[in-house]
This record gives sequence, C-alpha cells and structure tokens, in this order.
Amino acid sequence: MAHIGSGVEYGLHCLLWLVGPTPEPASSRDLADLQGVSASFVAKIFSKLEKAGIVTASEGLRGGYRLARPADQITVLDVVDAIEGEKPLFDCQEIRGRCAVFGAKPPAWSIDGVCGIHAVMLRAERIMREELGRTTVADLARTVSRKAPADFPAAIQGWLADRLASRKESRGPKARDSPIPRRRRT
Amino acid sequence: MAHIGSGVEYGLHCLLWLVGPTPEPASSRDLADLQGVSASFVAKIFSKLEKAGIVTASEGLRGGYRLARPADQITVLDVVDAIEGEKPLFDCQEIRGRCAVFGAKPPAWSIDGVCGIHAVMLRAERIMREELGRTTVADLARTVSRKAPADFPAAIQGWLADRLASRKESRGPKARDSPIPRRRRT
Repeated sequence: MAHIGSGVEYGLHCLLWLVGPTPEPASSRDLADLQGVSASFVAKIFSKLEKAGIVTASEGLRGGYRLARPADQITVLDVVDAIEGEKPLFDCQEIRGRCAVFGAKPPAWSIDGVCGIHAVMLRAERIMREELGRTTVADLARTVSRKAPADFPAAIQGWLADRLASRKESRGPKARDSPIPRRRRT
Repeated sequence: MAHIGSGVEYGLHCLLWLVGPTPEPASSRDLADLQGVSASFVAKIFSKLEKAGIVTASEGLRGGYRLARPADQITVLDVVDAIEGEKPLFDCQEIRGRCAVFGAKPPAWSIDGVCGIHAVMLRAERIMREELGRTTVADLARTVSRKAPADFPAAIQGWLADRLASRKESRGPKARDSPIPRRRRT
C-alpha cells in the first residue's frame, strides 16, 4: 500500500465539493455516491476529518458536512495527517547500538543523538511534508475550476440538491451518514 | 509499515562496513551477525543490492560482498530504490473520472493531464527523492567515523577477520551467503 493511501485521495476529492461561497452541507454518503466510491469508507474518512477539525457536521434532514474553516486554511498536509495519522516515512529500529563489537552495552557515542541514517530520512520527510503543506484545498478547487466548464459547479450542486430532495422523509432527521451512530447502536 | 522499511535501514548499516580504502569482502551472514539482525533478511537485501549494481559478490572462502562502485557514488536513494523497488508515495486511483454527473463517459477535460491531487503528491515525492539523493553512503560513513573512536574501524575489521578465520574449511569455498543458491535448490 502506498504511504499516502486512497483514503486521502477520496477525502480530498470529496472536500472539493464543499468549497465555494455558499455550498450546501453534504452527507458523506452523497459525497461518496457523487464520486463513485465506497460509502462506508468515505463515512470513516469524514469521521477522521471531523475529529481533526477540518469539517463540521450538522444534524437534520438538510444537514451534512461543511468545511470547518476556509478552504485556503486547509492544506493537503492537514488532510493527510487527519486521515493517515502519525505515520512516519521511516521507522528507525536503532540497530546502531546492536553492533557485535560493543558486547552487551553499546558505548554512549554509538547511540548519542539521532542516527545518521535516520537523520537523512527525517530531512526527506520534513521536506516532503513542507511541500504537502504548500497546497490548500482552495488551490485544488481552483485547479478543477480552471479546467471545468463554467456550468460544472452548478451541475454538482444540482446533483447534490436532487439527492437531498429525493431523500425519504421517513428516514427522519438524520444527515450525518457517518459510521459513528451505527457504532453506538452495536 | 513505514514507506521506507527496515530493509533499507539494515542495508545502509551493512554497507557502512564495506566502505574504506581496502575493506575485505564480507558475507551477508557476517554483516547480519555484526549488526545483530536477521541473517536471512540481510541475505535477501544483499541479493537486491547486487541486482541493482550496488554491491558485487566474489566466491571462495575469502569471498563476499564489496561495493560495486565508490561509496561517494552510492546515494541513499539508490539503496532505497534497490531495496524497496518502484513504490510510489501515492497510488492515484483516478477517481476524478467517476463523478456521477458525468454519466457513463467522463468528458475529456475531466481526465486530461495529471489529476491536481496526484500532481501535489508527485511534487512531494520528487522533492523527497531529491533529498534522499543528496546523501551518499560515503557521507554516512563519515558521520559514523566523526563520532566513533579512532580504533573503531579496526575493531570492526578485526571482528570480521576473526569470523573469516573461524569459518570451518569443511564448508568449502562458499562466501556468498545469499538466498539465491537456496532458492535454486528448492
């Protein structure tokens, strides 16, 4: 599996549809169906995004997810960290202290500071994270809007509005299609 | 598992002992035992390093692995690629074309060029790889020799020489403790 998994890809694509001057909130199920991806997977992703303070959920038939802050204040790195968690590029096993010539106890010089190999990996990780922090969800949305025809945002909002209208009232006031309520029931 | 796994850590640590003006060749088993790590895992690592042209193996009782080129021409990136193979940071699933508003066939504009999200990941990966390519095995060896006491390289060479001396002649001329001959037998 790639270091940055499909959860990040799905999450970022879904967040794009929550960008705009006055977007309606959208349920994770509708966002998943709009993207043609697994609804249960997207529900888990949005649960993580909510926990990280990237989206907020509102209840009610017209409720759903919104961005918790402006899209130009949400970086790709924020989304990666929210979804992937603390996942190091390299997990140093500190084998430098196990060298057979040291016997049972490695000398202080051999385990002092950060291992030189680990240091290279940490530099590479830092520079990678800095790059991911340079692009925001707003930047990504601009990239799409530059390529898309002018009526594309309206088509998306129309699709989501149709979904909302067709939602059966019998389901009652429930808009957060996140797995949290389901977990509570079990 | 981390993107850059323990195979790279073990491989780089082992390569450090093959750096020097006139180092003796060492078997992957001796290098593994010197590091206190799994001999079968290190054998697989060296098989990959040999395939990538980073080390060469010589046969015979005094044979073993040597660096295939000067240590200042072997980068950390070379070792990562040799051991991890082609492992992308992000594996784009191209979900942009699956948007429900497109119906059965996505319009050309929607799948033209590299996806904006994929492009961010590719930039982060490129910059990370550039950083890994800036440090060589010679740099890493210098980091160790700056920290270590003056007699440390001799202690390592002495340990490896003792290993060679104690190797039973009954084993015959076989120095490459790689898994290749074993695989051929099965």
